Amino acid sequence: MKRISQFLILMCMAVFSGNAQEKKAFTLEDVIPGGSNYLNLVPENKLGLKWWGNECVRTDVDNILLVDKKTGEETVLATLDEVNEALANGEKPYALAQPAKPLLTLMQATMPWGDRKIVVFPGKVEADGGNDDYMFWYDFGQKKLVNMFRIEASQGKRPANLDFCKANGLLAYTAGNSLFVAGEGDFCKMINPAAMGGSPDFEKDVVYGQAVHRNEFGIRKGTFWSPKGSFLAFYRMDQSMVTDYPQVNTSTRIATLEPDKYPMAGMTSHKVAIGVYDVKAGTTVYLQAGDPTDRYFTNISWSPDERNIYVIELNRDQDHAQLVRYNALTGEREAVLYEEMHPKYVEPQHPIAFLPWDDSKFIYWSQRDGYWHLYLMDTQAEVQPETKTGGDGETTFRESLRVKPLTQGEWLVQEIVGFNAGKKEIIIGSTEISPLQANLFALSVKTGKRMLLGKADGTHSGSLSADGKYLIDRFMSFDVPREVSILPTDGKDGVALLEAKDPLKEQFDLPEISIGTIKAADGVTDLYYRLVKPVGFDPAEKYPAIIYVYGGPHAQMIANMRFYGASGWDLYMAQQGYVMLTVDGRGSDNRGLKFENCTFRHLGTEEMKDQMKGVELLKSLPYVDEGRIGVHGWSFGGFMTTNLMLTYPEVFKAGVAGGPVTDWKYYEVMYGERYMDTPQENPEGYAEADLKQKAGNLKGRLEIIIGGMDPTCVPQHTYTFLRACIDAGTHPDFFVYPEDGHNMIGVDRVHLHEHITRYFEDHLK
Amino acid sequence: MKRISQFLILMCMAVFSGNAQEKKAFTLEDVIPGGSNYLNLVPENKLGLKWWGNECVRTDVDNILLVDKKTGEETVLATLDEVNEALANGEKPYALAQPAKPLLTLMQATMPWGDRKIVVFPGKVEADGGNDDYMFWYDFGQKKLVNMFRIEASQGKRPANLDFCKANGLLAYTAGNSLFVAGEGDFCKMINPAAMGGSPDFEKDVVYGQAVHRNEFGIRKGTFWSPKGSFLAFYRMDQSMVTDYPQVNTSTRIATLEPDKYPMAGMTSHKVAIGVYDVKAGTTVYLQAGDPTDRYFTNISWSPDERNIYVIELNRDQDHAQLVRYNALTGEREAVLYEEMHPKYVEPQHPIAFLPWDDSKFIYWSQRDGYWHLYLMDTQAEVQPETKTGGDGETTFRESLRVKPLTQGEWLVQEIVGFNAGKKEIIIGSTEISPLQANLFALSVKTGKRMLLGKADGTHSGSLSADGKYLIDRFMSFDVPREVSILPTDGKDGVALLEAKDPLKEQFDLPEISIGTIKAADGVTDLYYRLVKPVGFDPAEKYPAIIYVYGGPHAQMIANMRFYGASGWDLYMAQQGYVMLTVDGRGSDNRGLKFENCTFRHLGTEEMKDQMKGVELLKSLPYVDEGRIGVHGWSFGGFMTTNLMLTYPEVFKAGVAGGPVTDWKYYEVMYGERYMDTPQENPEGYAEADLKQKAGNLKGRLEIIIGGMDPTCVPQHTYTFLRACIDAGTHPDFFVYPEDGHNMIGVDRVHLHEHITRYFEDHLK
Repeated sequence: MKRISQFLILMCMAVFSGNAQEKKAFTLEDVIPGGSNYLNLVPENKLGLKWWGNECVRTDVDNILLVDKKTGEETVLATLDEVNEALANGEKPYALAQPAKPLLTLMQATMPWGDRKIVVFPGKVEADGGNDDYMFWYDFGQKKLVNMFRIEASQGKRPANLDFCKANGLLAYTAGNSLFVAGEGDFCKMINPAAMGGSPDFEKDVVYGQAVHRNEFGIRKGTFWSPKGSFLAFYRMDQSMVTDYPQVNTSTRIATLEPDKYPMAGMTSHKVAIGVYDVKAGTTVYLQAGDPTDRYFTNISWSPDERNIYVIELNRDQDHAQLVRYNALTGEREAVLYEEMHPKYVEPQHPIAFLPWDDSKFIYWSQRDGYWHLYLMDTQAEVQPETKTGGDGETTFRESLRVKPLTQGEWLVQEIVGFNAGKKEIIIGSTEISPLQANLFALSVKTGKRMLLGKADGTHSGSLSADGKYLIDRFMSFDVPREVSILPTDGKDGVALLEAKDPLKEQFDLPEISIGTIKAADGVTDLYYRLVKPVGFDPAEKYPAIIYVYGGPHAQMIANMRFYGASGWDLYMAQQGYVMLTVDGRGSDNRGLKFENCTFRHLGTEEMKDQMKGVELLKSLPYVDEGRIGVHGWSFGGFMTTNLMLTYPEVFKAGVAGGPVTDWKYYEVMYGERYMDTPQENPEGYAEADLKQKAGNLKGRLEIIIGGMDPTCVPQHTYTFLRACIDAGTHPDFFVYPEDGHNMIGVDRVHLHEHITRYFEDHLK
Repeated sequence: MKRISQFLILMCMAVFSGNAQEKKAFTLEDVIPGGSNYLNLVPENKLGLKWWGNECVRTDVDNILLVDKKTGEETVLATLDEVNEALANGEKPYALAQPAKPLLTLMQATMPWGDRKIVVFPGKVEADGGNDDYMFWYDFGQKKLVNMFRIEASQGKRPANLDFCKANGLLAYTAGNSLFVAGEGDFCKMINPAAMGGSPDFEKDVVYGQAVHRNEFGIRKGTFWSPKGSFLAFYRMDQSMVTDYPQVNTSTRIATLEPDKYPMAGMTSHKVAIGVYDVKAGTTVYLQAGDPTDRYFTNISWSPDERNIYVIELNRDQDHAQLVRYNALTGEREAVLYEEMHPKYVEPQHPIAFLPWDDSKFIYWSQRDGYWHLYLMDTQAEVQPETKTGGDGETTFRESLRVKPLTQGEWLVQEIVGFNAGKKEIIIGSTEISPLQANLFALSVKTGKRMLLGKADGTHSGSLSADGKYLIDRFMSFDVPREVSILPTDGKDGVALLEAKDPLKEQFDLPEISIGTIKAADGVTDLYYRLVKPVGFDPAEKYPAIIYVYGGPHAQMIANMRFYGASGWDLYMAQQGYVMLTVDGRGSDNRGLKFENCTFRHLGTEEMKDQMKGVELLKSLPYVDEGRIGVHGWSFGGFMTTNLMLTYPEVFKAGVAGGPVTDWKYYEVMYGERYMDTPQENPEGYAEADLKQKAGNLKGRLEIIIGGMDPTCVPQHTYTFLRACIDAGTHPDFFVYPEDGHNMIGVDRVHLHEHITRYFEDHLK
């Protein structure tokens, strides 16, 4: 806890004070993403930076530029005009009817091979009216197109999930529910016909090559090329046994059904298998994982020699994870290398990563000591498995191989950016400096020592050169709108490519923003809060106050970044004369396992107690009118908002809840059961969190807003809650953004915030 | 127009004035149907009155009573206890395990045969836990059950559309999409297996024995027994080619799809045929009507000799109606007897009715002279068909038989109550005294003279004895809460069975309610309005005002009945301090064809102009605050409300639109195309009435409220409109009653009116 206090002394201060009322007021169009002037007011950025082997390049709309790692100076490598000329003049099969300039940009180009002057990019051509998708390889040494192929659509669906393999030059992608591999010339093969025994496999509701388990457990994709490009591992998900949620699209001539397979808590879930496609043989084997019912197959990774696939497997209860090694050629299940059990839940989120300089060693991520840390495991040094208890007294684990903790302490590793093989270092991102930050470090595998890369201030993200010697470092903090640098990973100074100013700060009077800590409801834990005072603050006045809340796992609202993470709407409401408060209570991210899992089986209960400590803080402020306290949040924050309005009806005068959970039995299996178990196993917990049962408590003004086709918190949450209120004789308000999803984006987001603002102006001001 | 003025002198006065503030205030629970105290405050009623041949009887929960036609005295004919005893002690197959008392009431019993002491009623029994439906015949002479049979369910659906034939003692009914005939003992036969050529006919989306064409054209049922019980005519509707509207029920464990066949304007419609089931032979023939595509088969009736079926057929354009005679035995199309054409639309709404004393003559209803009148047609006197033009210069018609107008004038016949064969009179209901009334008359077929039956005041409905000599007359007016009498049809005085008081009037201070006329926007037509002043009215004050509007065809908001038709909510808002105004503009009911069809192809346009005359009236009242004018309406009135808010944004400060049409292309074929033609034929008219195109005009506060499964104005109307507003940057409000239909009923109706009231209190007061 000492570390936090020191950090606060550093960070907790007001800045945008003085000179109030001298500049014009900003609008929601200025500060809400999607607003007409929003992009003019965010700090300048430097997009398109990437690595070409060990060289830094930047691809923008019109050019590909080499960026000098030491000076930052840029030299043109190729231009879009050259690319278009090459396209127009190429020989068959690359001949195009017309230059494709308006249909192509190089922004998304990559340069996969450090030793080849080839740019790879997807795009469209004018020849077919920009209809089909293509993949282009342009050689800027020879100034010609060296490869081009069409990425076929299927079942009427566009290609998606493009996954290029630089080892074999093939592109894996999905279209509809099918998986394809395409490459040079006309090569294009659908993988699924060969799946599961050789017969055509267009089964209804079976999905190939896409992320599974609703993107939980860190799963973000469904294809996994082997290191040398000999194999493609992929997910196959059978959803035929899963109930359809009937989503309706009213934007068609007559409204149409768009059913969505949605496994709800306690109900039948999908079944997942992992296939391995042999590129040369054209055959597929499936990993022999046994009955897939009620199991999660997560965090797939390859051994460097391509002989093995590693999977972290989890039971439906999510309290027992196993690191399993499979034979990639035969699919045979070879060994369980490591296991973790926890009375609440285990949540694997990161695949193992082999050391580039030692094929016998890999890194495993674990929270077994209470925080995400890295453990070095040695496949060559097997030991007798023995059940042990982690340092935090709760996780138990069994190791079948030698394990060495690489990091330890009351902070957590957030990211492995890459490796510096020469120095046997891992470049990581961590919260070691502050839980409100992400900083980059070079971690010595040998000593466990860490060397800070870049500034100690702020929230950093990095991208590493092939040899690990250079890092593109992007960061922002409360004081630094945006900085982009190239840093050597030896700790020496690098070169700043961009030191942006904040146009919003320069053009407008912004509110005073400060952060601090309060004690959680447990009386022990420190919680961060962020307080935004009204623009033109007058300490003699009484202001209405709004708590903006999220409160759920995997998210943190307060960070050392622009405005300490305050949103444009926070600033706007401060300009309208509201005090804005946010508290990251227990259950939220980056504070360790116990901080998070104290909410297990009764989501909302502890989290609300912590928000009420925020209310205490507000009431202690002489300038806050305690009769005019409001609350707003989205998703888990919508659940919290509604729950707070119903649980403390005397406290909150008005609230706006977006896309809320109202009953966890309508939420999906993976996330929902992790924190709540099933409705059958935990009826009391589900009842306690069922907002319908509190519908009669509503006193203040509560508006619920949803996207009409929300695939995450399905509309059933809100409609059943409205029904409960009607039955109980209480009066919530409601608004819907037809066809929108879990969040409003683009211009809808501005409209949404006008709507939310109006609600508070109507009922809180 | 003279008649109207005279009537107004009679009716237009204030009554509930004085003594304001002395009594307690009423609540929405007191005055909204579904409210907890509503039934205690409506005028007493006398339910269960019906005819047993020429005798009047009354069936209540516990007794069947004979009502003396001259004195009104009641004598017990049978008791529920007797019925239950008979049920309990009956021989097989009527033996029941337990008495069925709690599951039966006699309220719904009928006594079909004037010469038999038999009561027929549907009910349930305790033996099977009240699960199945039964039909009982109880003989109160013999005091025993003489028949009882189970009404089978089918395809998991309960029996519905029960249609009992007293000529043959059989019951026709539907269950699921099938049609059944059941009778004495175990007889039960599904009609559709024999349909359309003898093979089983459980086709998907084919419906038997139910009302078709979405209940337009006066269609209320789908089975038609022949006069002597030899045949059952029935509708068969093939909906397989009609698009499904995806309605979603969120009250199940996971929301479920409940698709509804909904033919939208301009889209493919269903196909209807008429079958004739021969009871004795057990066979079915279909009327040979030709290709049913885009045709309406309406107003089925039988000839007295059962040899013919008459159908009024209409083309999809609804501008050409034909009265067609079919051979009921062969299905052969025999003749077109009469035709009507109109450049706007023809809307048949009444089946022909044969004179009981002359099988060669029947009555045809027509608006060909501009008002609904009765025409006597003579099947024996055929003439050369010749196209003629009606008196109003617009309807053209062709007659193949001799036709004699029975009624004429600027008023309309509303109902044929029945016949007095002895005196060759027809008992009708008409607006002859006032378009705000329904009065009963004995119409001489010979002379066309009409004799008023019952009081000249108010809105009457009648029920006639078998011989036509006595009438049960129910009526209410502004001054008479409710009166129920038995009247002889010779014009002499009858006996009053009930002269009810109005408990609401007695217990509360009610607002002053008056009616009057203003000129329509055409400068010529008189329109009725109803004005409700605030309770405790102070002429020196400035009150907010709300226009309650419907405005569409087939409805009239103002009538000479309790409160001149003002709703409980009108009274409640008057108590809250609002002036409430309603204007029945052009397009509405009971004022003749031209009054209605001036809106053809541009629904909303003329109607809004007339509502703006109502606004002028409000602005002329010194006690109305013209800056606080609101508007509220449901269905067509929701369309009007939204349209008014968007078309006159400077006039209306707040509005609440319920279940609105926002674009007629989302409305159904039958009603929609009658008034608007198809979107393909009338793009300008559809565009003019498309509220989405005016979404950017919204300035005042507009809330739209819908039932989440509205099958009439499907939710697509509102969701596409909300989307248009979001895109246009305007801000409507919205609320939904999940799973409710086109209107909220029961306790939801109270909640709804709390909600609407709150909206006006928030934004208009």
